[in-house]
This record gives sequence, structure tokens and C-alpha cells, in this order.
Amino acid sequence: MAVIVQKFGGTSLADVDKIKNVANAVVREKKLGNDVIVVVSAMGHTTDNLIKLAHEISKNPSDREMDMLMSTGEQVSIALLTMAIHELGFDAVSMTGAQVGILTEDTHSKARILDIRKDKLEEQIKAGKIVIVAGFQGVTKKGEITTLGRGGSDTSAVAIAAKMQVERCDIYSDVEGIYTTDPRIVPTAKKLKEISYEEMLELASLGANVLHPRSVETAKQFKVPMRLRSSFKLDDLGTLVIGVEQMEIYKPVTGLACDKSQVRVVICDVPDRPGNASKLFTLLAKHELSVDMIIQSYARSTNNSNDIAFTINKDDLTKFVGMKEEIMSILNPSNIHIDEDIAKISIVGAGMIDRPGIAAQMFETLAKEGINIKMIATSEIKISCLVEKMYAKEAVSALCKSFELEGEDVALVHGTLPD
Amino acid sequence: MAVIVQKFGGTSLADVDKIKNVANAVVREKKLGNDVIVVVSAMGHTTDNLIKLAHEISKNPSDREMDMLMSTGEQVSIALLTMAIHELGFDAVSMTGAQVGILTEDTHSKARILDIRKDKLEEQIKAGKIVIVAGFQGVTKKGEITTLGRGGSDTSAVAIAAKMQVERCDIYSDVEGIYTTDPRIVPTAKKLKEISYEEMLELASLGANVLHPRSVETAKQFKVPMRLRSSFKLDDLGTLVIGVEQMEIYKPVTGLACDKSQVRVVICDVPDRPGNASKLFTLLAKHELSVDMIIQSYARSTNNSNDIAFTINKDDLTKFVGMKEEIMSILNPSNIHIDEDIAKISIVGAGMIDRPGIAAQMFETLAKEGINIKMIATSEIKISCLVEKMYAKEAVSALCKSFELEGEDVALVHGTLPD
Repeated sequence: MAVIVQKFGGTSLADVDKIKNVANAVVREKKLGNDVIVVVSAMGHTTDNLIKLAHEISKNPSDREMDMLMSTGEQVSIALLTMAIHELGFDAVSMTGAQVGILTEDTHSKARILDIRKDKLEEQIKAGKIVIVAGFQGVTKKGEITTLGRGGSDTSAVAIAAKMQVERCDIYSDVEGIYTTDPRIVPTAKKLKEISYEEMLELASLGANVLHPRSVETAKQFKVPMRLRSSFKLDDLGTLVIGVEQMEIYKPVTGLACDKSQVRVVICDVPDRPGNASKLFTLLAKHELSVDMIIQSYARSTNNSNDIAFTINKDDLTKFVGMKEEIMSILNPSNIHIDEDIAKISIVGAGMIDRPGIAAQMFETLAKEGINIKMIATSEIKISCLVEKMYAKEAVSALCKSFELEGEDVALVHGTLPD
Repeated sequence: MAVIVQKFGGTSLADVDKIKNVANAVVREKKLGNDVIVVVSAMGHTTDNLIKLAHEISKNPSDREMDMLMSTGEQVSIALLTMAIHELGFDAVSMTGAQVGILTEDTHSKARILDIRKDKLEEQIKAGKIVIVAGFQGVTKKGEITTLGRGGSDTSAVAIAAKMQVERCDIYSDVEGIYTTDPRIVPTAKKLKEISYEEMLELASLGANVLHPRSVETAKQFKVPMRLRSSFKLDDLGTLVIGVEQMEIYKPVTGLACDKSQVRVVICDVPDRPGNASKLFTLLAKHELSVDMIIQSYARSTNNSNDIAFTINKDDLTKFVGMKEEIMSILNPSNIHIDEDIAKISIVGAGMIDRPGIAAQMFETLAKEGINIKMIATSEIKISCLVEKMYAKEAVSALCKSFELEGEDVALVHGTLPD
């Protein structure tokens, strides 16, 4: 009998009716003759509410106690979902991360999974039970409760799927899969049947809320087939995420994403001395400031100095502003310029590797529209351009046309679209 | 260094400000030079809210899943209280029932504690930490999460106090202790400095919300001195509950309670055959109906039948009404009479044992007021009389005067007072 892992996020479990709906989705899979392990997140806004409560008590609560607090969210979900499945007349049992034996590193708030015990899960499955597992949480060797950080429940699901060598890991959410282009922009948009781990990774790191990169990485590593599907449309098979070697040949560009959550920072006229860039980024790392795109211009002949430009997340802007003086004193630049009025437009495609003209085509398309490119960053299967925010929508439309992204075989990330 | 156990109930932890207040109470004890183990309940109405959520999903949720659900309430409390103590600059660590090693029976929703591991608590205390333990919950040998049922957090606190052989177990609530008479009736009421376990037990079983009988039983068995005190008046030492052998001599009557949550049932003219009473109470037990006072009248010469009267809790009335037909068919009585219009007035006192006239004095006092006694039940240190509800307040006043319960050395249970 095949074992299927199903993962349901907080939106799918937001209230009692939605929990009952998830119970139906679980029982449906069981009725198909599969054994089912279900991984769940906390209900709707539970996590946010717990964080709010903690911050009313402490501005800087200890990671250990935050994990103790947060892990209750998933525990509530597993109990309620199990009850709902019992109501449908099926045998089910809830298990916390500790009970399953999801062993993690001895660190809090973003622990990585080290191993998962098979025997506890196997025991319940052999007894014919549907197992409902609390996602996002684990336990250390010493019995400390840990959480896995962002995208933790997806990671729990994929890790369990990998360990149990299951047939498939279905990630349910309120999104029906990966779309060719966003239906809100292009009404003819269609859902992708397949996408590769690599493409999914690039899209995910561009700000897609669909799947966290960590879970995609894990799925890629252990070759776990994932299916992204909607908990509200159970007949819809969604999008299958598999290895690129298992896929048919793709168009060079399969996806497009627009991210407006970044802010561009330019450190102007940094004296061109070895170690200055290192000093800057060490300092940013010390303050736990994540940097995305980084550009260092050539040293200008006039004054032997560089401009160092990079993007940070909007949420970190206050933190960065607080560091400005320190940066001034360390690097002695002429100025620090902050530009919030930007959008990052990226095209993604595994097929890009062998086709050299893609970047040129992108720049040309934007130029034809009169859109100035403020920064460029590339990876093997992704090209990102920073443009003025007001041109974001225009840029997306033009690139969609240019790369034929209105068809059936391309993906556009949801979540961060031009207004 | 002495170890003190402090227990805080849900009312003391109802919101963020109250949690901060509790943190102060804990730190205050630590500053006095004591090591502190704190046991907490779930915040305010958390438990009720979780029960409501469960019942929206299932009318009869499994006990195991209810325990899984309910135990999150205390876990939230321990995390938040620990953060609040950190904010005051003191080292503290939260522990779930499972982490402490509160080993219980392999049963759900009302498991009894079998043992508590000392080493985990001792390790944290040796490290100088204030330990914040989730009350109400435990764990079975197999790692299943259990809860202890009503009064569970008090029981957790006393059990930990017993195992760790601590100096004292302080039970904090919004009540300042056990009062001589209720201040709302008798303005001169004063707080008792001491009360015996035995008297506390009788008072508790009469419906006092102050302490659950299970915790008092455990304290009595292991000779744990308990102090009932208010989390809002930290300078007030409250009432000490200790062994009767450690106390000075008492007045014969030390407490008075009025319970209006009972309903009287009379099964009329039950044929006088052996085994009829047994059949009746076996049936009631099978339906998990708790019976309090039981009276069987002498067989009447006229028709060789008995009246069997007993009281049940109001909450169980619907359940009982559903059993009426079954009782009629089994016992064949002439009628089943239900009387909701009653109040149970009880006087309690360890000193009663050696003084034979107390019952007579109680009956005479009520008679003088023209109050009819509908049922009487007695134990070694308690006499209870059922009266019409409308006379409850009058009865309490008269008995207070008669037994000099307006002074300093007597206790009256709060919570169930005449209107």
C-alpha cells in the first residue's frame, strides 16, 4: 500500500469549517487505498497572535521560550484535525514533533532536522491509523522543543516523506499550483502540470509564498515528488514538482517574478582599499541583515573609490538606518543613498543555461519600453533586473509577451505582483 | 537553601499585565533567598475556549485528543511567564509535564500521577534557575500526553512539592485565604491563619473553588504545608493548611458552607426488596452520575416500601431525567420526584468529633427560625442539612450566630453563597 504525505498550511486550517474540509481531503486519500501521514501548520493567525502576545511581554524573548510558545499552535491543529477525522468514522492519531521523533539540532527558532524516527510512524500506520503530525517543530536529543523557522511545516512534510520513502508529498494551500502567468494580469493563464525543483527554487527565493526553498531543497536532495494543490479543489491535481531529468524539454524562460519588498542601498564613493567590502558585509551579517543583490562598480579613476550597491528587505530598513553612522565611520563613503522606489523583475528557466541570448533579450525588451535598469543580478537559471516601481507592471507585461509567458508552459510567481 | 513551590491559577494569569504581576511574585520569593518551582494553569479562559473549539468539531471528542489539545494551554502560560521573569533579569526555564517527567497512569482526561522525576527539576535548580512547570499535565511511560482532570494544577503543584520535599507549597489565586465567614454577608469576617487538611477537605468537597480535594488529599498524605494566598496581595500570608496535629485546639465548628448546585431526587415507594438500592446506585454509577447525600427511609408498614432520596448536581439533571424511565421499569416506584428548590447548608469542624451536641444545636437553630430540614447527612467532622433555597441566607446567618462563626477562628467557604 502506498504511503502519501499531505501537508496543510494555516490558511487551509483557519477555522472549524476549514478543518472539516481538510479532514475530508485526508479521508479522500485514505479511501483511494493509500496510507496517509498528514503534516499541519498552526490554524490561520495563531502564530501571529502568539508572537504578538510574546512581544507584549518582552521585546526580545528568548528563542527557547518562543519555541515553547509557538509549538502549541501546531499541537492545537493536530488535535482538532484528528477529532474531525474521527467524526468521519476513520481511525487517526495526532503526534507532536517530539512524539514522532523529529530530531533536530540543539538550536532554537530555526533548527535543522537531523533525523526522523521511522518506527513511531510505522507503528501507527501498521495499525491502520491516519497519522496527524505537528509540522514546524522538532525535539533535541535532550528533549528540548525546537521549531524549524520559516517554511518549517513544508520542511517537516518533505523530510518525513523522504525518510518514509513515500510515493508523493502533497502540499495543500489556497493556491491551485504554479501558473503560467498570473491570472490577475493575464486572464488566459494556465496551470503548469510540472515544474523542476531548480525552477521552483529560483521562484521560491524570489519571494513566492507557495513553497519555502528549504523544503524544495530537501525534496530535490531526496528526490521526493511534491504536488502543489488546493485544499479547496480536491479534484485538481495541481502542479507536480520533480527533478529536471524527469521532465520534458522546457522553454528557456518558464517563469517570471516581480518582487517589490526590496530596498536599494548605495554606499557612494567607498575608498578602493582591499577589505572594505568584507568589512561592510560582515557588519551587515552581524546585525542579521540579509542582503539580496550586490553590485560593486569599477573603481573610478577620478577618486579611486567604488560605489557598493545592494538590496535589503523593506522590513530591515529601520535596522539598517540605525547602522548608517557606524557604516559611515568604518567605510568613510561620501554618502549613503536609500531607494525604496524599486521593483525586482526576474525571469527564471532551467532551459536558460544553454541559450546565451536570454539576458540580452530581457534588457532589450525593457529598453524598448523605455524602462531603465538600475541593477542586474544573474544566476545560472535566473536573471533579475531592478527597475523603478512605477514601471513594474509594464515590465512584467512586456517580458510576458517577449518570452511567450502567456502560454501553458511557463510559471509566474504569485504573491508579489505589480499593483 | 529552601525550595518553595508556587502555584498560580488561570485568573492570576488572565492577561499580559497579570502575567507580569505573577513574575514579580515569583522573583520576590527568589529574592527572599529561596529556590522556586512555579506551577501554572492555562491563562484565563483558554481552557474554556479550547473546549468550545473541540465541541464545534465533535460532540464527543476522544479523551486522548482532548488531552493533546488542552495541554497547550499550560504550555502557553509557562513560555510567557518565563519570558516575563527574564524581563526582570532573572534566570528561568519553562518545562512541560513531559519534560519534567510527571509520569501518570496510561489513561486520559483524569490521569493520576504515578511518579515525578527529581533529577530534571534538581538539575535546573542547581543551575540557579527558576523552574516554570506546566500544571494539569503529565506523560505516560509510552510518551502519551495526559491531563489530570479537575484541580489538576493544584495536584501537580502539591505532588511536585511532596516529591521535592519542599519547605512549602503556596497556592496563589484571587482569594486571600479561607475566611471566618463570608465578608459579603458578615463584614467583620476575618481570615483564618491556619486550617487543617481535614477541615479543608470537607469544605472543598462542599463546593469550594479554593482548592481541589485531590490536592488537599495529596498534601495531607505527604504532609506538605500549603499556603492559600492572593497573587494580588503579596504581603498577605493567607491561610496555612497543615496537619490537625500541628494546630492548636479549635472551636467545634470552624466552617460553614452553602451549596445551591444540588438537586434533590426522591424515588417514592420503592418496594422493600434486598438489592433495590444497589440496582439504583449501580445504574447511576454506570451513567457516571455522582450522587451526594443519600437517605433511605424506614419501610412503611402500610405498603412495605421505601422512599430513597439523594442529591445530584444540577449539571447532571438532564442526564438523570433521561434515565427516569429505566429507573421506573427496574425499581417500580410510585413516583420520581425532583426538587430543584434546595440549598445544602453544612457546618464543618475537626473539634466536632468529641462534642455530641453539635448536630442537635444545628437542628434547633434552624427550627427556631422556622426552617424545615428536608434531608440530613453527616460525616465525622461535617453535618449537612438540606433546606428550601429561599431560606438559605437566613439559615446561614442563624448558624453563624449560633456557632459564633463571626469571630476569627472559623471558616466559611466562598463560591456558593445564598443570594
